[in-house]
Amino acid sequence: MQPFELSLTEAAHAVRARELSPVELTESVLGRISAVDGRLGAYVTVAADAALVAAYRAEREIAGSGPRGPLHGIPVGLKDLIDAKGMPTTASSDVRAGHIADRDSHVAARLDSAGAVLLGKTHTHEFAYGLTTPQTKNAWDHSRVAGGSSGGSAVAVAAGAATYALGTDTGGSIRVPAALNGVVGLKPTYGLVSRSGVTSLSWSLDHVGPITRTVRDAALVLAATAGHDPSDPASVPGPSTGFLEAGDLQGLKVGVPRNYYFDRVATGVEEAVRSAIERLAELGAELVDVEIPMARYIQATQWGLMVPEATAYHERSLRDMAGLYAPDVRILLEAGELTSAGDYLRAQRARTMMRDAWVRMFDGIDVLAAPTVPMTAAAAGQETSEWADGTTEAVSDSYVRLSAPANITGVPALTLPVGHDHDGMPIGMQLMGRPFQDATVLRVGRAYEETAACTGRLAPIAA
Amino acid sequence: MQPFELSLTEAAHAVRARELSPVELTESVLGRISAVDGRLGAYVTVAADAALVAAYRAEREIAGSGPRGPLHGIPVGLKDLIDAKGMPTTASSDVRAGHIADRDSHVAARLDSAGAVLLGKTHTHEFAYGLTTPQTKNAWDHSRVAGGSSGGSAVAVAAGAATYALGTDTGGSIRVPAALNGVVGLKPTYGLVSRSGVTSLSWSLDHVGPITRTVRDAALVLAATAGHDPSDPASVPGPSTGFLEAGDLQGLKVGVPRNYYFDRVATGVEEAVRSAIERLAELGAELVDVEIPMARYIQATQWGLMVPEATAYHERSLRDMAGLYAPDVRILLEAGELTSAGDYLRAQRARTMMRDAWVRMFDGIDVLAAPTVPMTAAAAGQETSEWADGTTEAVSDSYVRLSAPANITGVPALTLPVGHDHDGMPIGMQLMGRPFQDATVLRVGRAYEETAACTGRLAPIAA
Repeated sequence: MQPFELSLTEAAHAVRARELSPVELTESVLGRISAVDGRLGAYVTVAADAALVAAYRAEREIAGSGPRGPLHGIPVGLKDLIDAKGMPTTASSDVRAGHIADRDSHVAARLDSAGAVLLGKTHTHEFAYGLTTPQTKNAWDHSRVAGGSSGGSAVAVAAGAATYALGTDTGGSIRVPAALNGVVGLKPTYGLVSRSGVTSLSWSLDHVGPITRTVRDAALVLAATAGHDPSDPASVPGPSTGFLEAGDLQGLKVGVPRNYYFDRVATGVEEAVRSAIERLAELGAELVDVEIPMARYIQATQWGLMVPEATAYHERSLRDMAGLYAPDVRILLEAGELTSAGDYLRAQRARTMMRDAWVRMFDGIDVLAAPTVPMTAAAAGQETSEWADGTTEAVSDSYVRLSAPANITGVPALTLPVGHDHDGMPIGMQLMGRPFQDATVLRVGRAYEETAACTGRLAPIAA
Repeated sequence: MQPFELSLTEAAHAVRARELSPVELTESVLGRISAVDGRLGAYVTVAADAALVAAYRAEREIAGSGPRGPLHGIPVGLKDLIDAKGMPTTASSDVRAGHIADRDSHVAARLDSAGAVLLGKTHTHEFAYGLTTPQTKNAWDHSRVAGGSSGGSAVAVAAGAATYALGTDTGGSIRVPAALNGVVGLKPTYGLVSRSGVTSLSWSLDHVGPITRTVRDAALVLAATAGHDPSDPASVPGPSTGFLEAGDLQGLKVGVPRNYYFDRVATGVEEAVRSAIERLAELGAELVDVEIPMARYIQATQWGLMVPEATAYHERSLRDMAGLYAPDVRILLEAGELTSAGDYLRAQRARTMMRDAWVRMFDGIDVLAAPTVPMTAAAAGQETSEWADGTTEAVSDSYVRLSAPANITGVPALTLPVGHDHDGMPIGMQLMGRPFQDATVLRVGRAYEETAACTGRLAPIAA
């Protein structure tokens, strides 16, 4: 096994045990980027020299006084919405040409304090406003989409081109590409991880979180990045420890949705997720049938919040340089100018009611288990999904449909790989929990992955 | 002195000492209502029999086991936006004809648990959307406006027609009528007192709070009504004790605004407030010159939030019974339909920046002292204010101008009487503090009022 194949947990163990040096690991991952990223397109910017300097510094410090923690000396990729001092934040957009971040985002500063080695910046759908990340190929099948908008981060992690990465998630943008590329993604509780210094898509729905190869890795990254930051108005003092607690599932109640989450879902996806849920029951969990409240308002609420907030954020650039946006993104942004305050406020009120209804739903369960995405990765260029009930849906609507509720309600949502379809494409299961119960969601995910063979391994890519 | 003249604190002492029975007090206040409310128009609904029944019950319970607390057996008026089970909540509007509340609002239930005697419901500007309360006369001069929108509550307290009252405040609606009628009004920190069961004007700006004759009385009412309530989405677990702590002002820093709060303020008001601020310095406070940040955005932010939120709340009634609104309110509500989401979001973003800037301003001071309203009560029907700088302003804009910042930023804001103008009309000083430092604001207000002769007395009304 080569160093780039190691999970974050494995690499951290090896570094602590002096079996692996940060320089060796970083060189291995940079070598993997050189070998595969020409075909994948996961990265916008690779800062190879800066990464090696950081690795040498980490090596020297660890040789002297041991590692600061599990992230020390381990290479990471950042979605290119997340500012890192001295590097461009392009948001994968021509609008940002020439932009260089003059300071670290809160999460980049936290990773830097933890001794992380920054590899570079990964591709996103332009300004995160889309679910495919068109610049990037799926790590398992280059003719298929990566998913988005954190497609670069998910593909890098799946391909061994980063040991872990950060993404952002406004309607599923961490979980969708993680699921479509067979890795783990966590959208933490709203307010738990600061978005300060991160380009916004829709501030009331935006979240920052980890994309990793195992659930345990995601817990390590969350522990290093969670915590109150007054410079993000939505940041709150939530629990920032306990994410690493493991344990069995005796007495834990797992909600299984009787509506919404298994409607219009591909057979292979439904089978894999139901089988994973049965595994949770075998591990001691009690399965509880639940009704998802206000399901028919989900899509309107998500779009009703996102579209005007995105337009408001881009107000000035839309006026000054609208021609620099990609046509799909520009259309969405300009459409936002037509939204009335009444429509936006209706969406806000629906969200408030939905949050309350979800809190009541969680009175009877500890976590909710469901598919992350209703299908596996679509072929590049495929525009619609055909469902067994005879309906047709835009692919981007299919992708966002099952992930958006956790953005609207702010609840923590984890995706982890639970199998493959007939074409060998990966399938994700989504575990959601009560607000600020991220630790519970991670504990259930870990219990599952300890019994499973399919997490932690790379996508099959010829080097 | 007759019982209706007692402050809440005095009445509570007398009840506890068995020198005054709740029945005697309630009969005295009901008698005062009969004597003066025909001229004042403070009440929409007086529930005399129900109040007497409650007073008899309180008398019996207190005779047996002593009072539950300082509100036990003391009569209170509620602004007619606040639901009390079995009573109409008219919001002073024909739109609400026939509406009867089927349960208590959170605050009404809290007062009921504290043993309060509910006298009835007081007039508001229709749906709180205005600053005059046209049905009600100023307690000091019946040819002048009461101020609004909690005009009925303020006039009732000023006239001895309630020992204390609750109001609501979206742009100054507790503080403006309290100041114009020579009583005390507190807009608590946003989120500290639940609005559940209270008709909304603009949910991101709405607050519920006490109108009383003394600052100490306001602290007693706040202590009985503050606390987390999950049924109000904005309610947070803030400090709900400490409001009654008194103390001197040694070392306390009082900010004195060098801009905004003394611009276009009547001479008599400025003199009275500056003299009250000097009194705070004599009591040991250090006066600190401060710049009010983002002052030129205050009015646009207040209106930009309030207008579309109010319209959204009234959406259905505007469609079904627009003709039942008063013309001034209907125009404002219909104008809200024209607001774009972009304008609303600009106001939201301005608020976020203003909140941050105010937090930084409070780094250097403990409280901010300023006039509550730039002038005393205007004559009924007066539409504009003429200022010394040659400008003319709508009276309602004058009334809201100095109180709105505390609604936008959510900081606690107290008004207390600090003198009279040449016509003998009362003047209020406003004390604002850091979020959830309501106790500090109350402490400063109490230190002032203990040295002053002008708080706690009724308006001069012939019975």
